[in-house]
This record gives sequence, structure tokens and C-alpha cells, in this order.
Amino acid sequence: MPDLFPSLKYHDGLIPVIVQDAKTLQVLMFAFANEEAVSLTRSTGYAHYFSRSRNKLWKKGEESGHLQKIVRICVDCDEDCLLYLVEQTGCACHEGYASCFFRTMEGEVILPRLKDPADIYSR
Amino acid sequence: MPDLFPSLKYHDGLIPVIVQDAKTLQVLMFAFANEEAVSLTRSTGYAHYFSRSRNKLWKKGEESGHLQKIVRICVDCDEDCLLYLVEQTGCACHEGYASCFFRTMEGEVILPRLKDPADIYSR
Repeated sequence: MPDLFPSLKYHDGLIPVIVQDAKTLQVLMFAFANEEAVSLTRSTGYAHYFSRSRNKLWKKGEESGHLQKIVRICVDCDEDCLLYLVEQTGCACHEGYASCFFRTMEGEVILPRLKDPADIYSR
Repeated sequence: MPDLFPSLKYHDGLIPVIVQDAKTLQVLMFAFANEEAVSLTRSTGYAHYFSRSRNKLWKKGEESGHLQKIVRICVDCDEDCLLYLVEQTGCACHEGYASCFFRTMEGEVILPRLKDPADIYSR
């Protein structure tokens, strides 16, 4: 039962991360992490990612307060994708929905909006 | 309620796809799709992806029979990630587990093996 951290495969320095609510199993969001973000996620117990657009490491909720406490991290068969099972504080999506996946491909909004996005980052 | 297919954002021609069992909500696997794969997924009702390693489009289950019938496709807030909710035939993972995420980061196997991998592709 060797720890899988050393065998994780990064593509251009990044590994995809699926984030799922540990209790409801709702898929909350998707992001990328670099090795430092994965390491910080493990050592702090809170989800960290790497933003391709901002080219920087970030801790989920550092501005919004919508932290993700890690319950378990799973690794896929190819060791090139992670699944964070989390306890989500507030809503995962910056648009104020519990999950970023609040629309169907046909454009139907399938989740209630829990917060006004303007309020999320004006704390 | 505009259809979101035309506004999907691809990175190097690919969009990440999270695959979740529509009934149990278990996260089954992760893959990438190109525009053709997304289009075929919609038109056929069965999950298609694009393999970076083999550089080709593939239909899940075309060899193994482990097809994924689409129940719903969701799009994330940034329109750069998809969530396929599926009815999975057989097991999603080529290693014989229901889900590719059968191990924790610590290396513990948390799912039962349903099939011998050697049997999956010798049909």
C-alpha cells in the first residue's frame, strides 16, 4: 500500500482535480493542481489548486471564505487525475450556486442560486 | 436558454469531462473530449472521448462493451468543463473496478474488483 503522491503524473506540470461533496456526492467543481498545490492540500487539509489563467497557486475560499475541507483524496487508475472529497463551506461556484455544474448543455439552469455573486467577493 | 455547445471552450482542442453515475452519483472516470467527441456524444447518446496518448477519438465501451448511455450533460460556469451523467454498463475502469478512483492517495484500495482486467478486453 505505497503512498501514491510520488507516482502522480502531471501534464505540463498540472493534474486535473474533480471536487465532490463527501456527503451528498454532488460534483462541485473542477480545477487543476500542480505538485505544490497537491502537497499543500495534503499538509493543510484544505483544497489548493493552480490557476492556469492567473498562473498562480490558490487556496479555495481564501477570498470568499468558501473553504473546502478535505475528507479524502482518491487517485485514478492512471495516476493522472485526482478526486477531492470535501466538506464545502458556502457554495463552490463563484456565481453563487452550490456546484459549478448548474446548467445542462441545453442551457437549462438546474440548481437554485444560493448567493448573489456580488456578495461573495465583497466580504 | 441558449444551447451551450457553441460556447464551449477547448484548451489545445480538448475539454475535460467528468463522468458520474446518474443514479448512485459515484464519479466513474475522467477523460478529455474534442468537439467531435462532444458532438457524437450528443447525437448518439453514448459517451465519446478523445485520447491524448493514442491521439484518436474513442467511444467508451467500443472494445469492452462497457458503454456509457448519456442521461444528461452539464456544463460548468466557465464553459470549459463537462459533466456526463451516465448509465454505465459493466465497470467504468479498465482495471475491473466500478470507478477509476478505486484508491486513496495513501494507496488503500477502497472498491471491490468486479472483473479480471484480462477478461475485459478478451471478449
